[in-house]
Amino acid sequence: MQVKNDLLLRTVKGEKVERPPVWLMRQAGRILPQYRAVRNSLNGFIALVKNPELVAEVTIQPVDELGVDAAILFSDILVIPEAMGLPYELVEKKGPYFPKVIQSKSDIEALTTEVNPQLDYVFGGIDKTLEKLEGRVPLIGFSGAPFTLFCYMIEGSGSKTFSKAKRFLYQEPELSHQLLQKITTAIIQYTNEKVNRGVHLIQIFDSWAGVLDEQSYREFCIPYLREIVQSLKPRVPVTLFSKGAWFALHDIQRVGADVIGLDWNISPSQARDLLGREQVVQGNLDPCMLYADDQMIENATIKMIQEFGRNHIVNLGHGVYPDTPLDKVKTFVNCVKSFRY
Amino acid sequence: MQVKNDLLLRTVKGEKVERPPVWLMRQAGRILPQYRAVRNSLNGFIALVKNPELVAEVTIQPVDELGVDAAILFSDILVIPEAMGLPYELVEKKGPYFPKVIQSKSDIEALTTEVNPQLDYVFGGIDKTLEKLEGRVPLIGFSGAPFTLFCYMIEGSGSKTFSKAKRFLYQEPELSHQLLQKITTAIIQYTNEKVNRGVHLIQIFDSWAGVLDEQSYREFCIPYLREIVQSLKPRVPVTLFSKGAWFALHDIQRVGADVIGLDWNISPSQARDLLGREQVVQGNLDPCMLYADDQMIENATIKMIQEFGRNHIVNLGHGVYPDTPLDKVKTFVNCVKSFRY
Repeated sequence: MQVKNDLLLRTVKGEKVERPPVWLMRQAGRILPQYRAVRNSLNGFIALVKNPELVAEVTIQPVDELGVDAAILFSDILVIPEAMGLPYELVEKKGPYFPKVIQSKSDIEALTTEVNPQLDYVFGGIDKTLEKLEGRVPLIGFSGAPFTLFCYMIEGSGSKTFSKAKRFLYQEPELSHQLLQKITTAIIQYTNEKVNRGVHLIQIFDSWAGVLDEQSYREFCIPYLREIVQSLKPRVPVTLFSKGAWFALHDIQRVGADVIGLDWNISPSQARDLLGREQVVQGNLDPCMLYADDQMIENATIKMIQEFGRNHIVNLGHGVYPDTPLDKVKTFVNCVKSFRY
Repeated sequence: MQVKNDLLLRTVKGEKVERPPVWLMRQAGRILPQYRAVRNSLNGFIALVKNPELVAEVTIQPVDELGVDAAILFSDILVIPEAMGLPYELVEKKGPYFPKVIQSKSDIEALTTEVNPQLDYVFGGIDKTLEKLEGRVPLIGFSGAPFTLFCYMIEGSGSKTFSKAKRFLYQEPELSHQLLQKITTAIIQYTNEKVNRGVHLIQIFDSWAGVLDEQSYREFCIPYLREIVQSLKPRVPVTLFSKGAWFALHDIQRVGADVIGLDWNISPSQARDLLGREQVVQGNLDPCMLYADDQMIENATIKMIQEFGRNHIVNLGHGVYPDTPLDKVKTFVNCVKSFRY
């Protein structure tokens, strides 16, 4: 089906557009009262992720409520570890918890890379979403990056330092590569089926990239990201968002994704110096800026758009924080939508 | 008293030294069995911080056990908020907790900047340490930076995002400046008294710098850091370690501290490109590297030393993690001590 609002897709191709497209990471989520209503009717977040009808509903909510230029399929990066053989829980106020983690070669060998049969609920969610979305905006599918999933699969939970995962990386580099390769194979299978089902763009989230250094990122992340991007790029555009990995931006650019996501640590001018003005980038307002007053939000948004110049998809530099006031999110979105280059 | 091992002080002055000096952030701490013995004999970490005799003992332990080229006074960055009027607790496995936080102008006005009378236990610890240290190595004193202390005083605890503290920054910029100025005044009084008592160098830790962007760092951090450095620099050398603030390194350099601390996200060559080869820098091995085998630790350490070149104080890029094996810490320290330029 032809996409009616194709601003995002034209921007990704480097076309000269009238204004930058805008959407928000985590736009389908707790900032919306209609999401909270759905969420509260269920027994937990994971139950929502596994319900295709409701996935479609919450995916489309921000398109209706905020008027953003893209929908992103409501899901979770941890569905892949689960499908590979490591089920998880979400502990209230603590985050993800894996009762079983990877500790040895045999643990790695026991994992499957044939994840798609277990992830049918995700693909069903895509079908339902596309049906209900009626081509209004493009639908983005996503996956965690290999290293970020590796972090959870070794550490077993969130962490400020991911020191257990990194210990494994440095103590067992060969096993680490073996695990990263298996995760990569699973991601390729998973994201390509998303494309088969009709998503218009794939975003890869390397959320914990920032715990590494340049050399480790080059060794343990870049080759796998390249493999994923190469498998997808002939089919759909790909966005690569490695949070905190400013130190690897040159390497990341050479991976060849269509769009590079940026966090708010990097200023637009620093990003343009590193990546050039032709690189399509996505980001990067500080999510906390949406706590400020309308005038300050608008000033910061316009300043960011002007400093990035063309080849820019407006977003925050991270997922929108759950306690962000909805009217401030609208101020942000509407400010972008009234802008003209 | 003349310092016998003055390698650190000569390096800070830019002198041509035979090898780089080495010490570790958090070297006085849980990596040492003798520290754990002292710690377990007391009712809590804060009780230890407030005991000058024991502070001297644990400060000197790593000089004896590891043979490092500097001692750093065992203390806590949160003694300043406490002395200003916000007492805190340390909750097991959760970190600092402030029952009372800053929420309004009157909260800020109620804070005192006359902190030294309440911090006499710190100065007593310096006296005892210098007496027992007998000039073997220089003694480093430290303080949290204004923004990092501000984070705890608003947020009331640690946080991945410090979104409450940043909300205050963006919603109440004037009050934020007022609070940052009061914290700065307290830090200046506190660190200058440390110098009066005889510490040889002051290190300022801006541990949460990395939650900001270039513009906010320029507005809310740089002017206060400059004020502190200017008050100290005629008297002792100053090290400024703003973790995660690579985006502000040019501004940080212009503050004029003698030494710039670096985390492991930045490679030596990236740091030298940004700061030049004359800038004395401190850091920056990934703390997780000390989980690796001896050969890998030595290779990474030598590589780092060679890439930084002269004008370098060897350290980790963050405090040593508490579960680091002691023999690996020794491998690291001994490797630096056998190196010759």
